[in-house]
Amino acid sequence: MHYNDFVLQLPNWMETFLSFQATVYPTVEERMRLVIGLAQQNIEHGTGGPFGAAIFDMETKQLLAPGVNLVTSVNSSVFHAEIVAIIFAQQRVNTFNLGKEGLPPYELVASTEPCAMCFGAVPWSGVRQLVCGACDKDARQIGFDEGPKLPDWQESLEVRGITVLRDVCRDEAVAVLKQYAERGGIIYNAR
Amino acid sequence: MHYNDFVLQLPNWMETFLSFQATVYPTVEERMRLVIGLAQQNIEHGTGGPFGAAIFDMETKQLLAPGVNLVTSVNSSVFHAEIVAIIFAQQRVNTFNLGKEGLPPYELVASTEPCAMCFGAVPWSGVRQLVCGACDKDARQIGFDEGPKLPDWQESLEVRGITVLRDVCRDEAVAVLKQYAERGGIIYNAR
Repeated sequence: MHYNDFVLQLPNWMETFLSFQATVYPTVEERMRLVIGLAQQNIEHGTGGPFGAAIFDMETKQLLAPGVNLVTSVNSSVFHAEIVAIIFAQQRVNTFNLGKEGLPPYELVASTEPCAMCFGAVPWSGVRQLVCGACDKDARQIGFDEGPKLPDWQESLEVRGITVLRDVCRDEAVAVLKQYAERGGIIYNAR
Repeated sequence: MHYNDFVLQLPNWMETFLSFQATVYPTVEERMRLVIGLAQQNIEHGTGGPFGAAIFDMETKQLLAPGVNLVTSVNSSVFHAEIVAIIFAQQRVNTFNLGKEGLPPYELVASTEPCAMCFGAVPWSGVRQLVCGACDKDARQIGFDEGPKLPDWQESLEVRGITVLRDVCRDEAVAVLKQYAERGGIIYNAR
């Protein structure tokens, strides 16, 4: 049996969209707004679910890599926005550990709190900070399932040295979720 | 900023290795032994950590897709064996939900119990059964971190209709973990 290579591409609109954005994002709200913009673009272009994520350099405040949910467009349940951002970020710095010595600290910004899978991916990625917009409840409210998560998921990251900031521009993040639901976007939970 | 496409390839040895294996795997032990064989090959060829996984059709007992840990060879913390198997399986049947109506039930077999990330990926994949060889403790014993997992992770899958079988050929699975540790294989936990 031969298995074809799997090719993961960022959506076609990404490069143009980013070319109109800032090059530096000094505040956490500015970083979150970029990520909410990614979620918004993703639903506008029909390239996936209403979720965006990105990894930023915490020293220069620049974008290392963006991510959007690509589940429906690449036919794979794995490619949530956070996973996509982690993959492209690690490719850019050529390491499987963004926390490696010699690298600046990196931060993962997600338009919605991570599901069980993405939560589990955070410690392996090497990021030092996780910033969330909408919360689990907001995602559930439009029908998405966040999966079986630890009740104390925030603390379990913090004991590993990963700071967690929640509810950053939450209303703006929730607005994109609601817009997706109103447009009848696919809710693709499996189990 | 331009982001190159990310290409995920199964290791070069995979096709040849599989060409010498059975086409049908009637028992769960046979399926687990294939997966342990994948973990073994992965360390022999230096293509990643000592972990194998595969997705099988529960009706025909045939292999749908294999996976091995590719973290070190593709420089990405995301590509644990289970994630790789899910991606290639979903590509083969061209859907992000292996539990979709009209498909046979599928089973994920993993040479070691899933880490927090892979555990979270299981419900989204659409598989109906998870079969594990070595347990969390065995992975921890050689220095791998399983991440912040729900204490009742098995039950949390079962309430979602995903059966979990544990300790299948555990000793054989542990032997591969030990061999990796003895050879000084990279233990690549980030946090």
